[in-house]
Amino acid sequence: MKKAPQNIKKVNLAEAGGNSLELFEYLRVGDLNDHMLNIVEAENRTLEFHSHADSDEMFYIIEGTMQIEFKDQIVDLNQGDFIIVPKGVSHRPICTTIVKLLLIEKKGTLNKDNTGGTYRE
Amino acid sequence: MKKAPQNIKKVNLAEAGGNSLELFEYLRVGDLNDHMLNIVEAENRTLEFHSHADSDEMFYIIEGTMQIEFKDQIVDLNQGDFIIVPKGVSHRPICTTIVKLLLIEKKGTLNKDNTGGTYRE
Repeated sequence: MKKAPQNIKKVNLAEAGGNSLELFEYLRVGDLNDHMLNIVEAENRTLEFHSHADSDEMFYIIEGTMQIEFKDQIVDLNQGDFIIVPKGVSHRPICTTIVKLLLIEKKGTLNKDNTGGTYRE
Repeated sequence: MKKAPQNIKKVNLAEAGGNSLELFEYLRVGDLNDHMLNIVEAENRTLEFHSHADSDEMFYIIEGTMQIEFKDQIVDLNQGDFIIVPKGVSHRPICTTIVKLLLIEKKGTLNKDNTGGTYRE
Protein backbone atom coordinates (compact mmCIF):
# COMPACT_ATOMS: atom_id res chain seq x y z
CA MET A 1 0.00 0.00 0.00
CA LYS A 2 1.29 3.44 -0.90
CA LYS A 3 2.20 5.70 1.98
CA ALA A 4 1.81 9.46 2.13
CA PRO A 5 5.03 11.44 1.86
CA GLN A 6 6.18 12.36 5.31
CA ASN A 7 4.63 15.53 6.71
CA ILE A 8 2.53 16.16 3.63
CA LYS A 9 -1.21 16.33 4.19
CA LYS A 10 -4.03 18.29 2.69
CA VAL A 11 -6.26 20.46 4.86
CA ASN A 12 -9.74 21.73 4.12
CA LEU A 13 -10.12 25.22 5.55
CA ALA A 14 -13.87 24.98 6.05
CA GLU A 15 -13.56 21.67 7.89
CA ALA A 16 -10.35 22.33 9.84
CA GLY A 17 -10.93 22.45 13.56
CA GLY A 18 -14.45 21.12 13.15
CA ASN A 19 -16.62 21.65 16.20
CA SER A 20 -13.69 21.39 18.59
CA LEU A 21 -12.28 24.85 17.94
CA GLU A 22 -12.61 27.12 20.94
CA LEU A 23 -13.07 30.84 20.43
CA PHE A 24 -9.74 32.69 20.20
CA GLU A 25 -7.78 29.43 20.10
CA TYR A 26 -5.14 29.35 17.38
CA LEU A 27 -5.03 26.03 15.55
CA ARG A 28 -1.82 25.52 13.60
CA VAL A 29 -2.74 24.01 10.24
CA GLY A 30 0.48 24.39 8.30
CA ASP A 31 4.05 25.61 7.97
CA LEU A 32 5.28 27.38 4.86
CA ASN A 33 9.00 28.07 4.99
CA ASP A 34 9.43 30.41 7.99
CA HIS A 35 5.72 31.22 8.11
CA MET A 36 2.93 29.59 10.10
CA LEU A 37 -0.69 29.11 9.17
CA ASN A 38 -3.21 29.34 12.00
CA ILE A 39 -6.99 29.09 12.00
CA VAL A 40 -8.93 31.02 14.61
CA GLU A 41 -12.57 31.69 15.37
CA ALA A 42 -13.49 34.94 17.05
CA GLU A 43 -16.60 36.80 18.13
CA ASN A 44 -17.33 39.97 20.08
CA ARG A 45 -13.73 41.04 20.37
CA THR A 46 -11.93 44.21 19.36
CA LEU A 47 -8.19 44.22 19.90
CA GLU A 48 -6.05 47.20 20.79
CA PHE A 49 -4.24 48.95 17.97
CA HIS A 50 -0.88 47.29 17.41
CA SER A 51 1.67 46.59 14.70
CA HIS A 52 4.14 43.81 13.98
CA ALA A 53 7.71 44.98 13.50
CA ASP A 54 9.04 41.94 11.66
CA SER A 55 6.22 40.45 9.62
CA ASP A 56 3.41 41.26 7.26
CA GLU A 57 0.17 39.62 8.38
CA MET A 58 -2.36 37.95 6.08
CA PHE A 59 -6.00 37.60 7.11
CA TYR A 60 -8.19 35.30 4.96
CA ILE A 61 -11.89 34.98 5.78
CA ILE A 62 -13.04 31.36 5.67
CA GLU A 63 -16.54 32.04 6.97
CA GLY A 64 -18.32 35.05 8.41
CA THR A 65 -17.30 38.69 8.42
CA MET A 66 -14.93 40.94 10.34
CA GLN A 67 -13.29 44.32 10.04
CA ILE A 68 -9.73 45.56 10.18
CA GLU A 69 -9.43 49.11 11.44
CA PHE A 70 -6.50 51.28 10.39
CA LYS A 71 -5.80 54.78 11.59
CA ASP A 72 -7.58 56.26 8.59
CA GLN A 73 -10.18 53.71 7.55
CA ILE A 74 -12.07 50.52 8.37
CA VAL A 75 -12.00 47.66 5.85
CA ASP A 76 -14.92 45.19 5.82
CA LEU A 77 -13.84 41.63 5.14
CA ASN A 78 -16.29 39.00 3.95
CA GLN A 79 -16.02 35.31 3.07
CA GLY A 80 -13.31 34.73 0.47
CA ASP A 81 -11.59 38.07 1.11
CA PHE A 82 -8.01 38.41 2.20
CA ILE A 83 -5.96 41.41 3.23
CA ILE A 84 -2.26 41.71 3.96
CA VAL A 85 -1.30 44.19 6.66
CA PRO A 86 2.29 45.30 6.03
CA LYS A 87 4.78 45.13 8.87
CA GLY A 88 4.83 48.23 10.99
CA VAL A 89 1.31 49.34 10.06
CA SER A 90 -0.96 49.99 13.02
CA HIS A 91 -4.22 48.05 12.87
CA ARG A 92 -6.77 46.27 14.97
CA PRO A 93 -9.19 43.45 14.17
CA ILE A 94 -12.84 44.01 15.02
CA CYS A 95 -14.94 40.86 15.33
CA THR A 96 -18.63 41.31 16.07
CA THR A 97 -20.45 38.23 14.83
CA ILE A 98 -18.61 34.92 14.67
CA VAL A 99 -15.87 34.67 12.07
CA LYS A 100 -13.46 31.88 11.09
CA LEU A 101 -10.24 33.04 9.54
CA LEU A 102 -6.83 31.89 8.40
CA LEU A 103 -3.80 33.88 9.54
CA ILE A 104 -0.43 33.61 7.80
CA GLU A 105 2.61 35.37 9.22
CA LYS A 106 6.17 34.68 10.25
CA LYS A 107 6.62 32.22 13.09
CA GLY A 108 6.88 34.01 16.40
CA THR A 109 4.74 36.94 15.30
CA LEU A 110 1.63 36.20 17.30
CA ASN A 111 1.67 36.70 21.00
CA LYS A 112 -0.91 36.49 23.70
CA ASP A 113 -0.37 40.08 24.70
CA ASN A 114 -1.86 41.49 21.56
CA THR A 115 -4.30 38.83 20.48
CA GLY A 116 -5.76 37.46 23.65
CA GLY A 117 -5.63 34.03 22.04
CA THR A 118 -4.24 30.67 23.02
CA TYR A 119 -2.40 28.16 20.90
CA ARG A 120 -2.88 24.54 19.88
CA GLU A 121 -0.56 22.78 17.44
CA MET B 1 -12.52 61.89 2.83
CA LYS B 2 -10.49 59.09 4.37
CA LYS B 3 -7.87 57.50 2.16
CA ALA B 4 -6.82 53.87 2.12
CA PRO B 5 -3.43 53.15 3.68
CA GLN B 6 -0.83 52.94 0.95
CA ASN B 7 -0.53 49.54 -0.68
CA ILE B 8 -3.24 47.97 1.46
CA LYS B 9 -6.18 46.51 -0.40
CA LYS B 10 -8.44 43.58 0.15
CA VAL B 11 -8.80 40.89 -2.51
CA ASN B 12 -11.62 38.40 -2.97
CA LEU B 13 -10.18 35.12 -4.20
CA ALA B 14 -13.33 34.01 -6.02
CA GLU B 15 -13.59 37.33 -7.86
CA ALA B 16 -9.88 38.03 -8.46
CA GLY B 17 -9.00 37.96 -12.13
CA GLY B 18 -12.66 37.92 -13.11
CA ASN B 19 -13.24 36.83 -16.67
CA SER B 20 -9.97 38.30 -17.87
CA LEU B 21 -7.74 35.55 -16.54
CA GLU B 22 -6.13 33.52 -19.30
CA LEU B 23 -5.36 29.87 -18.73
CA PHE B 24 -1.91 29.34 -17.20
CA GLU B 25 -1.45 33.08 -16.63
CA TYR B 26 -0.17 33.90 -13.15
CA LEU B 27 -1.92 36.90 -11.63
CA ARG B 28 -0.04 38.40 -8.71
CA VAL B 29 -2.58 39.23 -6.01
CA GLY B 30 -0.36 39.91 -3.04
CA ASP B 31 3.03 40.06 -1.37
CA LEU B 32 3.61 38.61 2.09
CA ASN B 33 7.13 39.34 3.34
CA ASP B 34 9.42 37.54 0.86
CA HIS B 35 6.55 35.45 -0.51
CA MET B 36 4.27 36.10 -3.48
CA LEU B 37 0.64 35.16 -3.93
CA ASN B 38 -0.43 34.23 -7.44
CA ILE B 39 -3.77 33.09 -8.81
CA VAL B 40 -3.82 30.78 -11.79
CA GLU B 41 -6.44 28.90 -13.77
CA ALA B 42 -5.45 25.65 -15.44
CA GLU B 43 -7.06 22.87 -17.42
CA ASN B 44 -5.86 19.80 -19.28
CA ARG B 45 -2.26 20.13 -18.21
CA THR B 46 0.07 17.77 -16.39
CA LEU B 47 3.47 19.16 -15.56
CA GLU B 48 6.72 17.23 -15.42
CA PHE B 49 7.91 16.06 -12.02
CA HIS B 50 10.00 18.79 -10.42
CA SER B 51 10.98 20.16 -7.03
CA HIS B 52 11.84 23.58 -5.67
CA ALA B 53 15.17 23.74 -3.88
CA ASP B 54 14.56 26.92 -1.91
CA SER B 55 10.86 27.15 -1.11
CA ASP B 56 7.90 25.22 0.15
CA GLU B 57 4.91 25.65 -2.16
CA MET B 58 1.32 26.12 -1.04
CA PHE B 59 -1.59 25.21 -3.33
CA TYR B 60 -5.07 26.41 -2.27
CA ILE B 61 -8.08 25.42 -4.37
CA ILE B 62 -10.42 28.36 -4.92
CA GLU B 63 -12.73 26.55 -7.34
CA GLY B 64 -12.67 23.20 -9.10
CA THR B 65 -10.46 20.20 -8.49
CA MET B 66 -6.91 19.11 -9.28
CA GLN B 67 -4.39 16.54 -8.18
CA ILE B 68 -0.82 16.67 -6.96
CA GLU B 69 1.18 13.57 -7.77
CA PHE B 70 4.11 12.55 -5.61
CA LYS B 71 6.40 9.63 -6.25
CA ASP B 72 4.33 7.41 -4.00
CA GLN B 73 0.79 8.77 -4.13
CA ILE B 74 -1.70 11.09 -5.78
CA VAL B 75 -3.57 13.60 -3.61
CA ASP B 76 -6.99 14.84 -4.77
CA LEU B 77 -7.58 18.50 -4.00
CA ASN B 78 -11.07 19.97 -3.95
CA GLN B 79 -12.48 23.43 -3.29
CA GLY B 80 -11.29 24.78 0.05
CA ASP B 81 -8.38 22.34 0.31
CA PHE B 82 -4.77 23.40 0.58
CA ILE B 83 -1.56 21.41 0.57
CA ILE B 84 2.00 22.52 1.24
CA VAL B 85 4.68 20.74 -0.77
CA PRO B 86 7.96 20.98 1.18
CA LYS B 87 11.04 22.23 -0.59
CA GLY B 88 12.99 19.50 -2.34
CA VAL B 89 10.01 17.14 -2.65
CA SER B 90 9.34 15.92 -6.18
CA HIS B 91 5.78 16.52 -7.34
CA ARG B 92 3.68 17.41 -10.32
CA PRO B 93 0.30 19.11 -10.63
CA ILE B 94 -2.34 17.32 -12.68
CA CYS B 95 -5.17 19.50 -13.94
CA THR B 96 -7.94 17.80 -15.92
CA THR B 97 -11.05 19.94 -15.63
CA ILE B 98 -10.71 23.67 -15.05
CA VAL B 99 -9.38 24.71 -11.67
CA LYS B 100 -8.66 28.10 -10.09
CA LEU B 101 -6.02 28.08 -7.41
CA LEU B 102 -3.91 30.30 -5.21
CA LEU B 103 -0.17 29.63 -5.05
CA ILE B 104 2.01 30.97 -2.25
CA GLU B 105 5.78 30.53 -2.36
CA LYS B 106 8.95 32.54 -2.11
CA LYS B 107 9.47 35.18 -4.77
CA GLY B 108 11.53 33.83 -7.63
CA THR B 109 10.35 30.25 -7.16
CA LEU B 110 8.07 30.02 -10.17
CA ASN B 111 9.56 29.82 -13.59
CA LYS B 112 8.21 29.23 -17.02
CA ASP B 113 10.37 26.17 -17.49
CA ASN B 114 8.52 24.12 -14.98
CA THR B 115 5.07 25.62 -15.03
CA GLY B 116 4.42 26.55 -18.61
CA GLY B 117 2.73 29.70 -17.33
CA THR B 118 3.03 33.38 -17.99
CA TYR B 119 2.96 36.26 -15.56
CA ARG B 120 0.89 39.37 -15.02
CA GLU B 121 1.40 41.65 -12.03
